[in-house]
Amino acid sequence: MPEAGPGRRGRRARAAQRAEARSTRVASVPQRRIPTYELLSETELDRLHGHADWILDTKGVEFHGDEEALELFRAAGARVEGVTVRFDPGLAEHLCSTAPKQFDMYGRDGRVVPIGGDNVVLLPAYGPPFVSDLDNGRRYAKLEDFENFVKLTWMSPWLHHSGGTVCEPVDVPVNKRHLDMVYAHLKYSTKPFMGGVTAPERAEDSIEMARIVFGAEYLEDHCVIQGNINVNSPLVWDETMTGALKTYARANQGCVISPFIIGGAMGPVTQPALIAQAHAEAMTGIALSQLVRPGSPMVYGNFLTTMNLRSGAPTFGTPESVLATYAIGQLSRRLGLPLRCGAHYTASKTADGQAMQESADAMEAGILAGTNFVIHAAGWLEGGLVMGYEKFAMDLDHCGMIHRMLAGLTIDDNELAVDAYSEVDPGTAHLGTQHTLRNFETANYDSALADTDSFEQWSDNGALDMQQRANRQWKQMLADYEPPPIDPSVDAALLAFMAERKASMDDAWY
Amino acid sequence: MPEAGPGRRGRRARAAQRAEARSTRVASVPQRRIPTYELLSETELDRLHGHADWILDTKGVEFHGDEEALELFRAAGARVEGVTVRFDPGLAEHLCSTAPKQFDMYGRDGRVVPIGGDNVVLLPAYGPPFVSDLDNGRRYAKLEDFENFVKLTWMSPWLHHSGGTVCEPVDVPVNKRHLDMVYAHLKYSTKPFMGGVTAPERAEDSIEMARIVFGAEYLEDHCVIQGNINVNSPLVWDETMTGALKTYARANQGCVISPFIIGGAMGPVTQPALIAQAHAEAMTGIALSQLVRPGSPMVYGNFLTTMNLRSGAPTFGTPESVLATYAIGQLSRRLGLPLRCGAHYTASKTADGQAMQESADAMEAGILAGTNFVIHAAGWLEGGLVMGYEKFAMDLDHCGMIHRMLAGLTIDDNELAVDAYSEVDPGTAHLGTQHTLRNFETANYDSALADTDSFEQWSDNGALDMQQRANRQWKQMLADYEPPPIDPSVDAALLAFMAERKASMDDAWY
Repeated sequence: MPEAGPGRRGRRARAAQRAEARSTRVASVPQRRIPTYELLSETELDRLHGHADWILDTKGVEFHGDEEALELFRAAGARVEGVTVRFDPGLAEHLCSTAPKQFDMYGRDGRVVPIGGDNVVLLPAYGPPFVSDLDNGRRYAKLEDFENFVKLTWMSPWLHHSGGTVCEPVDVPVNKRHLDMVYAHLKYSTKPFMGGVTAPERAEDSIEMARIVFGAEYLEDHCVIQGNINVNSPLVWDETMTGALKTYARANQGCVISPFIIGGAMGPVTQPALIAQAHAEAMTGIALSQLVRPGSPMVYGNFLTTMNLRSGAPTFGTPESVLATYAIGQLSRRLGLPLRCGAHYTASKTADGQAMQESADAMEAGILAGTNFVIHAAGWLEGGLVMGYEKFAMDLDHCGMIHRMLAGLTIDDNELAVDAYSEVDPGTAHLGTQHTLRNFETANYDSALADTDSFEQWSDNGALDMQQRANRQWKQMLADYEPPPIDPSVDAALLAFMAERKASMDDAWY
Repeated sequence: MPEAGPGRRGRRARAAQRAEARSTRVASVPQRRIPTYELLSETELDRLHGHADWILDTKGVEFHGDEEALELFRAAGARVEGVTVRFDPGLAEHLCSTAPKQFDMYGRDGRVVPIGGDNVVLLPAYGPPFVSDLDNGRRYAKLEDFENFVKLTWMSPWLHHSGGTVCEPVDVPVNKRHLDMVYAHLKYSTKPFMGGVTAPERAEDSIEMARIVFGAEYLEDHCVIQGNINVNSPLVWDETMTGALKTYARANQGCVISPFIIGGAMGPVTQPALIAQAHAEAMTGIALSQLVRPGSPMVYGNFLTTMNLRSGAPTFGTPESVLATYAIGQLSRRLGLPLRCGAHYTASKTADGQAMQESADAMEAGILAGTNFVIHAAGWLEGGLVMGYEKFAMDLDHCGMIHRMLAGLTIDDNELAVDAYSEVDPGTAHLGTQHTLRNFETANYDSALADTDSFEQWSDNGALDMQQRANRQWKQMLADYEPPPIDPSVDAALLAFMAERKASMDDAWY
């Protein structure tokens, strides 16, 4: 007896998602309909959380060059001594409690991108100074590459956010770069994005450009831009990062606050210590944001990984980092804030088997850990030094798979194929059943890059490996790109603002 | 205050594992110290289990050409009509109840390989008629390749079982092949293995060769050999498979019973139906084994995957198959039998990014699903048509990672690095701390193939991708291979048995 249950909804949702992805290249943000993976017991989580409190209580965190931060913490009850801020157990968590559990980001075309809850938002890699592709190899990134990756991100149904420094446009002076990057996000895409964080005034410029597009008043209660904030682990905040953080928070815009810890370098070599340290550091950043502006929308982030203990090189997608990701997910749920973790990480120099094995492991871990926000979901190579064109396309396909996985299984009469078993006898193939015909378009994710041809077909088609197929795909995507419309007066205002700001500065190259 | 808790044990265990792996190339079977992932609710599992019972009750399963099986089922209370056997709800599960929850397999050097419980046994791919490597490309497998993969498996600390048809030695007649394969497992390795299943007499030959090595009496209560049994899905058993199954069970040896279902072909296109169908089919095979010999040691297996619904080609490591794997794991725990699932599956023709992304996803799913027995943990390419030398080495490295992941995280004073935080101040690197020195050898899995060098070092070393590095590695492993000792009289007896058996048959090539 068929029923109108979640299965039918699930099927309709998948069909709608697919149709939407085809027509507009903008799939909805996927909802997590699968449980999280619970690695540790509540007792173990208590101990990790308690260890974070112990670190904050006994060692404390240093805030360098930021008297305002020290004063805010002192007024909030922390023990400030020189640049060191120590927190009684429970205080840091308490100071985070005004941050929203979930919030929306907005695109200039009116799209709403929900951050937190059951939503999983995917965005491109952040920060690589190099790019690479099969045709031209590895080279410094330029503004043209930056624009290309903004366009590619806009073209993909599987990325919901335009990212920030998708690569470093090193052909633009360091002190002017943020203007061109923010302009590219606003001009070539309509997805939410991240602005400059390398100086408070660059953060301010970024927000100001968003105000030109969205209206100053709109930004007072709509998050349209974020800053990607890293801690100087272990246990240090510098004035650049707190300056940017305070700027975004003051404007009621968002930040993603991520301790960046390689075990053995910026923290101990054992993962439980790293997890507790990252938890402690992230809480202090979120606490500062809430002291500046209660309710400003923050993401609890982390970037934890391992080190090759013979060479000191960072390593990615490792079993230890996978385990740490699960634990971080559990800890984050104690705060209840949107979680950033997981990514298509790799140390590989090329989009080979190593790259995809490490990326798959790191990404699946984030998904099962309960991530809400995945920076580096596409393009990352060489420990983040390189944005790879082919890797970008390969990661996108895996992002599509993640969408399907998040939808989970629906157990209902249709999915159980009750009618199919009436239609065919044992030993008979199900290829032609009514059930198969009814479901075949929606049952499975249709990979854009996985080759499933026979060896003979594959050979006849040039015996291309995935990287070579991806090379064709990103070029086709760029060729197909059409910019979203923008009001010419808004565009002109953005250009005028940039020209004015650039004219006020000498070029700085470092 | 340091404590003598599981952490110290975990560290010691990891150190011992690593030392053991280095010196003997035989790491212990890893114990799962991480929880399983529970995708579905108990209500959903009830429904899946009930659906399997419904299939067995209303459609039933056909047993072709096996009067003995029909008679055994009739006597056990099933409803037999022609070749169709139908089971009242609960009967199939009841008939499985005499199969052991956990059992040991034994190697000829006395090693014990525990199957079931918290143990995770990894073994090479099974069945490919082709092999490939970077030097000589794709070609039909020969006996020399078979021997090579037995040797490579023996060399690896991360595989605990020698597998069965690691590739098809197509240069040996079909009806004599099993003799050479079993001989290779017994001669070139000491790990447990699988014997012939393509005819009952080939199963009998395989067991007889094991008796020559272990002694006939020993086999009565020691499992040293298994048959890898597939169902002719949907819902059909043929006399070849039941013949082999009964032969192994009668000798109190093991079988791995795996429905092989590609959704849309040998079963419906929707995963929940496949899961229920596979559950139903596996239960009937285990039931038959227990009717032949109660207590014979069986593995509840499955091989479920998806299809490219445009071309009909099987697809692997897909999100749907990952979800199905989690659900199968949950269902298997209702029976409490050793579980076979997960593998380094891929449809790719080469050990590229696609191969490793699909393999990593499929394998991680099996691990979190609670697998005890992983066929195809190394070497699989092209949907199982090809055993790849480079893929084998690449998969081995991931198997090593799996060992580390299964160990989980230990939350104790050492892992929390209590002393490290006393030693260094905020902002100071942890590279030189006592804690780092004490832990750096055991903290992280040390990958044999992942490249983490700088771009410059990597370029200077020839800019090799993982597949090229793997090419060097498997050759080195083969070069380093030394056969385990074997009693010359036993070896002679094996050779005499093979000669006699071969002399009794004409060559058959199909």
